[in-house]
Amino acid sequence: MSDRLEIQVELGPRSYPIIVGGGVLAELGPRLASLGYRAQCGVVTNARVAGVWGDAALASLRRAGFEPVVVTLPDGEAYKTVDSLERVWDAMLLAGVDRATPLVALGGGVVGDIAGFAAATLLRGLPYVQVPTTLLAQVDAAIGGKTGVNHRAGKNLLGAFHQPRFVLCDVEVLGTLPRRELLAGLAEVIKYGVIGVPQLFADLEEGLERVLALEQAPLVAAVAASARHKAAVVSRDEYETTGERATLNFGHTVGHAVEQLTGYARFLHGEAVAIGMVAAARVSRSLGRCGEGPVARLRALLERAGLPVELPPEATREALIGAMRSDKKSAAGRIRFVAMEDVGQVGLVELTSVEIANHLWRVQAPEAGGGED
Amino acid sequence: MSDRLEIQVELGPRSYPIIVGGGVLAELGPRLASLGYRAQCGVVTNARVAGVWGDAALASLRRAGFEPVVVTLPDGEAYKTVDSLERVWDAMLLAGVDRATPLVALGGGVVGDIAGFAAATLLRGLPYVQVPTTLLAQVDAAIGGKTGVNHRAGKNLLGAFHQPRFVLCDVEVLGTLPRRELLAGLAEVIKYGVIGVPQLFADLEEGLERVLALEQAPLVAAVAASARHKAAVVSRDEYETTGERATLNFGHTVGHAVEQLTGYARFLHGEAVAIGMVAAARVSRSLGRCGEGPVARLRALLERAGLPVELPPEATREALIGAMRSDKKSAAGRIRFVAMEDVGQVGLVELTSVEIANHLWRVQAPEAGGGED
Repeated sequence: MSDRLEIQVELGPRSYPIIVGGGVLAELGPRLASLGYRAQCGVVTNARVAGVWGDAALASLRRAGFEPVVVTLPDGEAYKTVDSLERVWDAMLLAGVDRATPLVALGGGVVGDIAGFAAATLLRGLPYVQVPTTLLAQVDAAIGGKTGVNHRAGKNLLGAFHQPRFVLCDVEVLGTLPRRELLAGLAEVIKYGVIGVPQLFADLEEGLERVLALEQAPLVAAVAASARHKAAVVSRDEYETTGERATLNFGHTVGHAVEQLTGYARFLHGEAVAIGMVAAARVSRSLGRCGEGPVARLRALLERAGLPVELPPEATREALIGAMRSDKKSAAGRIRFVAMEDVGQVGLVELTSVEIANHLWRVQAPEAGGGED
Repeated sequence: MSDRLEIQVELGPRSYPIIVGGGVLAELGPRLASLGYRAQCGVVTNARVAGVWGDAALASLRRAGFEPVVVTLPDGEAYKTVDSLERVWDAMLLAGVDRATPLVALGGGVVGDIAGFAAATLLRGLPYVQVPTTLLAQVDAAIGGKTGVNHRAGKNLLGAFHQPRFVLCDVEVLGTLPRRELLAGLAEVIKYGVIGVPQLFADLEEGLERVLALEQAPLVAAVAASARHKAAVVSRDEYETTGERATLNFGHTVGHAVEQLTGYARFLHGEAVAIGMVAAARVSRSLGRCGEGPVARLRALLERAGLPVELPPEATREALIGAMRSDKKSAAGRIRFVAMEDVGQVGLVELTSVEIANHLWRVQAPEAGGGED
């Protein structure tokens, strides 16, 4: 019997299931057909994913009676642009989509964000589904309806909230993912453990190696536990108004700054988040929000997963302050910082970027043998 | 005492007022400030409107403490494009907008649709307000949250539903509107009379000339009656799912076809709708949905307003069938046709484009002395 779990994102009329399991990609066509859509559908993917999983996805769609119109984008965050969005718009409109034409996002977070944004804006909103092919996208980007593209003024500055009709997380697909991307995705899984699922964190401490070996049962359990937490948060705070959705950004304040300071070239997003989570844990300790135990557990688990945990040389105190200040989430200089209280528990605290840096260097100094300035 | 009416669009947490009156443009800044927004705001307008009403709008905003970032687009439907959308995106993002930066759409339907779409997609949704400066936009485009731009594959194919925070209809602004545009807007006012406000229709039969002379009381009454009807329909069918919103398209099936067949160059939208309404009334009569009386009243009122009521030579039977078939509202060849039942009453009927043409030429033939084919 294959492991298979279904989680519901509860959003009233916009509710949808997340299906996690081995081999569930084969359900794509039948599930889409069961929603009542017609012969035509769009598929947005990238060159790498298309080469490995394109045939299986298209075969499932065709068997279910669909005639897919495929848009293959170049692979990488560098292509998460208005130009790529326009490629999807053009292909779908010239193919003559109507309001009952669903779009399928087959790929990682970049593909999902672009396809979702295209779906949000074609004919004022087409249905779409997410088939995330990276661990990071399966536990994060594909869930919750945030779509968008980057702009030269910053990341994700253009976009829309648009919920998919379902999310299909096939863990077998992760077998063809580059090892480094798998580990980067694991950083976000560990994040869910910290922010609200202590059992997931403990399970990873117990059986990290089985997940890294892609054993199906623990992998399905880890993806599903992450997805379940994100689904619950999104259900309660769809549009980021209550603050709860902000807790998903644990580790992201410093993580985003590290990505920016290293030109988005050295670290994968999950790697930067790993560094940012350790930094956030240190700030939390300096704030008196948590003890040393949880900080050490977090750092140890990330290191076991082969993830980076130290700030890179570019992240001097001054540089970090500047980068955090320019983040779009900073409102009038105040940053909503996600503080760790224990493994499984976080809280929000308003801090300036200078205060964050002060706390970080106060705690960091004794360990690192002196801050950068 | 100046005439001033306020209408509420009831959409739960997205409800908003439409303010109709003489001189209400001066309320722009104070109203925006009363919603709690900060110093920064964006203003999207076009060159013609900016020249006449830009100073008054900016003065009102500045007096209320705003520092407006202005984007002036070229005037005209030809500029309702992704390029214009990108101009707004770029200007706003480079100015450093945050989620509390409201956008002001100061102009006709083109400006309102582009600005609304930009607001829907900047930072996944900024607040915006509509300050429509044409009669057509005051009674139609500015109300209801439909935003978008054109694509080479067709009109309004890209967009989003995004409701404004308020709509400010200053009838004094209509004094600088070219006469032809005023009359074209009046076609949509007459449409509201037909589809659900018989008193408005009767008032226009009684006092059309006072409205055309821009007398404030009857003008405010006509704009407010139109806006009230659209607001009620939108409240009940925000996303075009129940069919009720489709009744707003009375006259638009043939009207759109006429616009397309004349290259969007000969007729203003409202003029094409006038032609389309008379055609729709004739089809309704042929269907047995209404008698000759209402058809004659509609035609007479439109002619008194100086609006065209006859199909142009390009609209042969075959050409009209082809154009109606390519409309994005046609689903699998069936068109949801809005039939007139009486002045103030319409109903939906599913017809093919061939059936519409058959009914149109059956009724038209005896009058016109023979159809085109």
